[in-house]
Amino acid sequence: MSVNRFHVASADPIGVAVIGAGYWGPNLVRNFQTSVEFRQHWLCDLDIERAEQVLGDHSTVRVTDDLAEVLADEAVQAVAVATPAATHLDVAMAALRAGKHVLVEKPLAASSEQGRELVAEAERRGLSLMCDHTYCYTPAVLRIRDLLHGGELGDLQYLDSVRINLGLVQRDIDVMWDLAPHDLSILDFVLPPGVAPVAVAAHGADRIGTGRACLAYLTVRLNTGALAHLHVNWLSPVKVRKMIIGGSKRTLLWDDLNPGQRLSIFDRGVDLASTEELGDEQRREVLVSYRSGDMVAPALTEREALRTMVEEYARSIRTGTPALTDGRSGLRVLATLEAASRSLADDGRLVEIGEWATR
Amino acid sequence: MSVNRFHVASADPIGVAVIGAGYWGPNLVRNFQTSVEFRQHWLCDLDIERAEQVLGDHSTVRVTDDLAEVLADEAVQAVAVATPAATHLDVAMAALRAGKHVLVEKPLAASSEQGRELVAEAERRGLSLMCDHTYCYTPAVLRIRDLLHGGELGDLQYLDSVRINLGLVQRDIDVMWDLAPHDLSILDFVLPPGVAPVAVAAHGADRIGTGRACLAYLTVRLNTGALAHLHVNWLSPVKVRKMIIGGSKRTLLWDDLNPGQRLSIFDRGVDLASTEELGDEQRREVLVSYRSGDMVAPALTEREALRTMVEEYARSIRTGTPALTDGRSGLRVLATLEAASRSLADDGRLVEIGEWATR
Amino acid sequence: MSVNRFHVASADPIGVAVIGAGYWGPNLVRNFQTSVEFRQHWLCDLDIERAEQVLGDHSTVRVTDDLAEVLADEAVQAVAVATPAATHLDVAMAALRAGKHVLVEKPLAASSEQGRELVAEAERRGLSLMCDHTYCYTPAVLRIRDLLHGGELGDLQYLDSVRINLGLVQRDIDVMWDLAPHDLSILDFVLPPGVAPVAVAAHGADRIGTGRACLAYLTVRLNTGALAHLHVNWLSPVKVRKMIIGGSKRTLLWDDLNPGQRLSIFDRGVDLASTEELGDEQRREVLVSYRSGDMVAPALTEREALRTMVEEYARSIRTGTPALTDGRSGLRVLATLEAASRSLADDGRLVEIGEWATR
Amino acid sequence: MSVNRFHVASADPIGVAVIGAGYWGPNLVRNFQTSVEFRQHWLCDLDIERAEQVLGDHSTVRVTDDLAEVLADEAVQAVAVATPAATHLDVAMAALRAGKHVLVEKPLAASSEQGRELVAEAERRGLSLMCDHTYCYTPAVLRIRDLLHGGELGDLQYLDSVRINLGLVQRDIDVMWDLAPHDLSILDFVLPPGVAPVAVAAHGADRIGTGRACLAYLTVRLNTGALAHLHVNWLSPVKVRKMIIGGSKRTLLWDDLNPGQRLSIFDRGVDLASTEELGDEQRREVLVSYRSGDMVAPALTEREALRTMVEEYARSIRTGTPALTDGRSGLRVLATLEAASRSLADDGRLVEIGEWATR
Repeated sequence: MSVNRFHVASADPIGVAVIGAGYWGPNLVRNFQTSVEFRQHWLCDLDIERAEQVLGDHSTVRVTDDLAEVLADEAVQAVAVATPAATHLDVAMAALRAGKHVLVEKPLAASSEQGRELVAEAERRGLSLMCDHTYCYTPAVLRIRDLLHGGELGDLQYLDSVRINLGLVQRDIDVMWDLAPHDLSILDFVLPPGVAPVAVAAHGADRIGTGRACLAYLTVRLNTGALAHLHVNWLSPVKVRKMIIGGSKRTLLWDDLNPGQRLSIFDRGVDLASTEELGDEQRREVLVSYRSGDMVAPALTEREALRTMVEEYARSIRTGTPALTDGRSGLRVLATLEAASRSLADDGRLVEIGEWATR
Repeated sequence: MSVNRFHVASADPIGVAVIGAGYWGPNLVRNFQTSVEFRQHWLCDLDIERAEQVLGDHSTVRVTDDLAEVLADEAVQAVAVATPAATHLDVAMAALRAGKHVLVEKPLAASSEQGRELVAEAERRGLSLMCDHTYCYTPAVLRIRDLLHGGELGDLQYLDSVRINLGLVQRDIDVMWDLAPHDLSILDFVLPPGVAPVAVAAHGADRIGTGRACLAYLTVRLNTGALAHLHVNWLSPVKVRKMIIGGSKRTLLWDDLNPGQRLSIFDRGVDLASTEELGDEQRREVLVSYRSGDMVAPALTEREALRTMVEEYARSIRTGTPALTDGRSGLRVLATLEAASRSLADDGRLVEIGEWATR
Repeated sequence: MSVNRFHVASADPIGVAVIGAGYWGPNLVRNFQTSVEFRQHWLCDLDIERAEQVLGDHSTVRVTDDLAEVLADEAVQAVAVATPAATHLDVAMAALRAGKHVLVEKPLAASSEQGRELVAEAERRGLSLMCDHTYCYTPAVLRIRDLLHGGELGDLQYLDSVRINLGLVQRDIDVMWDLAPHDLSILDFVLPPGVAPVAVAAHGADRIGTGRACLAYLTVRLNTGALAHLHVNWLSPVKVRKMIIGGSKRTLLWDDLNPGQRLSIFDRGVDLASTEELGDEQRREVLVSYRSGDMVAPALTEREALRTMVEEYARSIRTGTPALTDGRSGLRVLATLEAASRSLADDGRLVEIGEWATR
Repeated sequence: MSVNRFHVASADPIGVAVIGAGYWGPNLVRNFQTSVEFRQHWLCDLDIERAEQVLGDHSTVRVTDDLAEVLADEAVQAVAVATPAATHLDVAMAALRAGKHVLVEKPLAASSEQGRELVAEAERRGLSLMCDHTYCYTPAVLRIRDLLHGGELGDLQYLDSVRINLGLVQRDIDVMWDLAPHDLSILDFVLPPGVAPVAVAAHGADRIGTGRACLAYLTVRLNTGALAHLHVNWLSPVKVRKMIIGGSKRTLLWDDLNPGQRLSIFDRGVDLASTEELGDEQRREVLVSYRSGDMVAPALTEREALRTMVEEYARSIRTGTPALTDGRSGLRVLATLEAASRSLADDGRLVEIGEWATR
């Protein structure tokens, strides 16, 4: 974890510009405006009228369709890029080269190759490059991270995620690229140091003839031997958002659709008591024991994830340390999806993901 | 569907002998005794005392530890084999050679090769060879079969099964061989004619060091392009027994732990409205539409599965037609598990299952 | 159902003024502005600045703190009153006397006596007086009304409602006056013609010493012998919003916190098969039979209740017929609450509710 | 808590006779036979053949239809009465007069007057008189008792019980007498010392014309001002078995149909922060605060309730101290039901229950 050179150490608000006033931009605008950490100077969009609408009438934020004008403004120390994925490389690279910290809407870039360029540039310049993996900043996922990093769940044994729904069939991407980024970024976020995916196998089906997978299963093998498994599906009439995280000490269930009990931590499980060789038969005898303890559903605060994300961006900039969801994490998610796509095209063959080695 | 030669056409009870008085035998004894279709003559076990205990004091059923004595009895037209899997080949083969119909506890035999011998012998002799896949005879699964065979769900798009629990770690077999037979036999049972698995990929993990997989994922590819996916797990503190069956017309959810609503049939889904080529860009444009209709939870009768299974055995014997879960179905399940084990040992490589071609 | 005299028959938008810019007013403003049925002319509040904030900068709606100015405007044909309950009588009465149709936020007035004055005035003048019982206009409740009025549930046998939560303890009213109006207005809304409450008994407890009941049970006796029962509670850590409506043909469960299955209609129940006198003992022998049919969860459209309510207000004004939740329904709810309060103060004694006789 | 005089202090098994071989008797026989605390000598029933069937062929238990013969046997120190309720007084009284300890199936007797006679006789003779309130001995209810007696829930604020189902309409008793004894005996069992019901109000409906209430609501007022409320119902197509117990410290939810999470203890609630008088208006201002802590679902052992009940009977006999569900508790339940029946017949008027004063 290297310290960036251009971090903003003072208590002054960080000057920020939002690039892109489409679907996601307004959420960023709203959160930067209510944050004491930032002062927003620009909203940049090719469609100026749209940008003006987003801001309303009394805003002191300036509108422009000229990115260069924004990047030339010395009051701007940080940008947030909410343009289409295909443009992320150009926009983010220009900003980095202008010496600005950069927050990018997911995915980090259109490919892991492009993502790698951005990461290299940011690291060379000592700038913060952050990827907005919003789900990671929900109270539930932050708590899961704490539990896994703090050892309260023990060693990760498996992670099983189900994210299925009657979903909008996307025009350009399959269900894996639509939904799995959420789970892969969460996986990246909660895994304790030293634990990392090494390979992925993916199976999918396009049963309604859309030309792309509408349901898919990803099996992610970790360097510890543990498995993570994702089920993503656009065709299910039942909506499920569940993740089971099996640890050697405790097992956690995250049910995001149960607001009254989002997290359940079970002190139940199977332990290996001992292993002994049995005389003649040389048969390995396994003695297991079973724990059957309480379950605790911790109270979670209700807090908007985007607000926490914006604060993390400020923290990263001010301290000069990488954000929790920095460029490299965005890159790992991209690389995993690319490997999964190769596996999907090759009958589910296990495909290695080199990128995680850098974790 | 050939007609067997030795079927029992009269209305007289079918003379039956149960071989094996261990865990499963007593259930068979109880059900044969309460069935008007059968008259039980023998209970055969190497441990005679145990067999006597099972029968109680006033039973007219004779006890023996000599299989030959049972098979020599002309009053015995059918046997039910509930001995350890390793002995299935010998016991069942002897019975078939003695001209008896045979019901075998799952698995059909210790290997698909052995299973194939039994199937061949039974077919050569025109005898009924049936595998006791008990789950198939629950009211829920019988209804699912009707819905799929009758076309009410439309074409199968996917099947997703989750069977997880804090389970007893088995001494000799992994979680796949312990739990997946249930789901694979159900899959075999409910698939409409012409639809069949062709290959399987399996991933598993043995995270607690028992020497065998304690959780596993099986992806089964069907000849139609549809996917079936199974999640089996001994380590989950949460018990789940759910199956989603996505059809082109309707989607079914089977939740076996919800006695008040075991089956839910959703008239909701995504349909492909049309596909058209777009001029220059040659881009395939997909137009999908969404259905959002009612859900129906059909009333199910409460009936013991084993009772229905025993009646199906009688029907098969009397009519000379294969049982719904005949030897071939037991063989297909075995062959799929063997292919899955090969895949598990080979990084999840997709392994073909020849056996289903015979379906 | 008399036809009002001053109804607005043309297709022109109905001129409307909103009185009160507090908690509820802005919702009305938003819905009137997006409705093609209405043109909003005024927003009136003693706090002019607040009213201006609600409207934003480009609004053509005029702001005033002078109710008389609004009522003198001939372009205003209808008003919507969202001021504190204590002022409802004065504001609504002034509007009626100025010949305006009136929509009143619940409760209709501070007392049933005041409510009766308003109803009388509106009927005398042939003006529409409507009470905004928003819940009645949710897709679920509209469907329940259809099912009960259409006879699909058969005769109402009982209604059991649970509305409990960790709720905000109110300063001026007890839990009964806070929560039960929702259920009582729904009851009034869904009961078929001829079925009406006649008496109520209420029990409550103030166990945390707030000086008012924090949980309460209301038993409402109907003229048919059926019971409606309400459980309202501010102290429950579990949030429940459920209503069971038992009919002679079918029984309905409304679970408002289950978005995927809000309504479940069960074709299950107990029927009286026959009744016969048994000779000597003169004992009445009851033969009951049990139905065990399917359950259907009907698909519901997602539509904002307030939007439907505003359309009903327009329909009432244009056709000169009472709104579904007219002044009389508001009055019946008030009268029931008053009777319940009397019962609560008198050890749960059954108190008659005269008002429902007018239904 | 007086010490009985005739308690069995030695470690010898207690000689026991079961009176009645109908529905419930066999359960008692089975549990006495597997208990090391008891040695069963007799099974007494007017239908000797039935009694013989219950015991099977090798039993050393003697069968008779002569109660006097049983009571004359000095080896018999205790009896268990499982005859129809109308005969409880005669059978139990004869046993007490013969110096036997007595366990009675619920209800204790056909009326509270009869129950009082039995209690008086047992106390006069220093014999154990116990009522088999089986539910009280489930692991869940035992835990609830511990939590309330130990103060972990704080002071009881309210108890809300729902026990509804599509139930068998009983021939002789209404739904209140059929189902409410379970909840009233549980209430009696879990209430801490000093807390007691003082009055009850009941409302019911017989909407299908069976001549008896098929659903009923009981409101039980406690001497502390707290409320207990019971909803019992034979007509509900949805099965619910839930109890909420609100305490000043924590609130407990018991969901008996959720085997994986029967008990949930919430550290959430509303507290009264302070109360102050506000100057002129003399208006009481209430300041409340809200707790929002974790929820814990304690692990429960799985143990048959009847087995624990039988052990408690032994403990009571050996120590000469009253059983947890002694005759007085059975009497309190009876008296409450009688008061509830009076209330039901009198429009829900609040009826006092004198019996609880003896608690």
